[in-house]
Amino acid sequence: MAGAAVPLRVLVDMDGVLADFEGAVLRRFVSRFPGEPRVELADRRGFSVRDQYCSLREDLGEKVASIYESPGFFLELDPIPGALEAMQEMIRMQNTEVFICTSPLRKYEHCIVEKYKWVEKHLGPEFVDRIILTRDKTVVSADLLFDDKDTIRGAEQNPSWEHILVTCYHNSRFQLQPPRRRLLSWADDWKGILESKRRQR
Amino acid sequence: MAGAAVPLRVLVDMDGVLADFEGAVLRRFVSRFPGEPRVELADRRGFSVRDQYCSLREDLGEKVASIYESPGFFLELDPIPGALEAMQEMIRMQNTEVFICTSPLRKYEHCIVEKYKWVEKHLGPEFVDRIILTRDKTVVSADLLFDDKDTIRGAEQNPSWEHILVTCYHNSRFQLQPPRRRLLSWADDWKGILESKRRQR
Repeated sequence: MAGAAVPLRVLVDMDGVLADFEGAVLRRFVSRFPGEPRVELADRRGFSVRDQYCSLREDLGEKVASIYESPGFFLELDPIPGALEAMQEMIRMQNTEVFICTSPLRKYEHCIVEKYKWVEKHLGPEFVDRIILTRDKTVVSADLLFDDKDTIRGAEQNPSWEHILVTCYHNSRFQLQPPRRRLLSWADDWKGILESKRRQR
Repeated sequence: MAGAAVPLRVLVDMDGVLADFEGAVLRRFVSRFPGEPRVELADRRGFSVRDQYCSLREDLGEKVASIYESPGFFLELDPIPGALEAMQEMIRMQNTEVFICTSPLRKYEHCIVEKYKWVEKHLGPEFVDRIILTRDKTVVSADLLFDDKDTIRGAEQNPSWEHILVTCYHNSRFQLQPPRRRLLSWADDWKGILESKRRQR
């Protein structure tokens, strides 16, 4: 229709973006394996917490994985500061479509249903309808993807979205190649990013 | 890259396409509510089995829903004849990407994890990685979507895929508007549909 603006479609990742995965992993690791060496949040490097624990000492990889593979782990994650408020504001914005786009663990047993329950508990049923669970985000079409994973690859070589890297400990020193952009936190100007994207189209 | 063909991306729905939802609903309804009126498969009309039972007698809607909301229901569905063989053949085809694209029930408690387990059991872990769980299929970008739902709507007004209607009882009398196409069963020429789509691009 002439004059009808096409809505801006925004995908928002869960772990590290809406839900504090890294904080919970460390806290539970310390309480379950108090004598073991650990990686402090400020020392996290690279997307995979398991790989970094593995490089600390090989058997620690499995130990840290046992934390996030436990029942209740995903359900009990704390929200990232400001995330819930931003999502509630975003879903009410004119000409804007929000989806939660998240990848399940390969050990999906507890993870997937707990992700749905987390969204229902913290954001409500209208967001449950907006969950897209996929290990390949490149095949979902959107204008923006807010995600803390530094490099996102999949079947589609040219995803339609612009990936906005959401800063967290493990990616804080990752060197972004221009013109890639970051969102430093939900206190940063996410609305400005949406508006700049609207103007670009 | 010049000369490198872009792969054909195919989405395949689960219920009614890979897994025999309708057969299981009827069988279990009869065994659990033997005295109640039922809708024979040949008399099924419209995508929602609940709506049709509701129109038979209002309280039957909830009764039939209690069948597919029960634990174990999705996990124990029989494969649709030929579906598993077709999927295994499709995933091995050159220049072809297959994903399983399925919508969970609003009562997701048992349904989602059982869908993952069903795929793992009947198709194997490489297909588990290819599950896309979404209530809105229009935002997934692909060339083809094989689905038994007659009309698929969502946020995206112009989905990238061509919807191939997979025939089953509830849609058998649905009048397809040209140029829309059907797959009558997995014994029908699904490979011809893939090849015709490749040529169209």
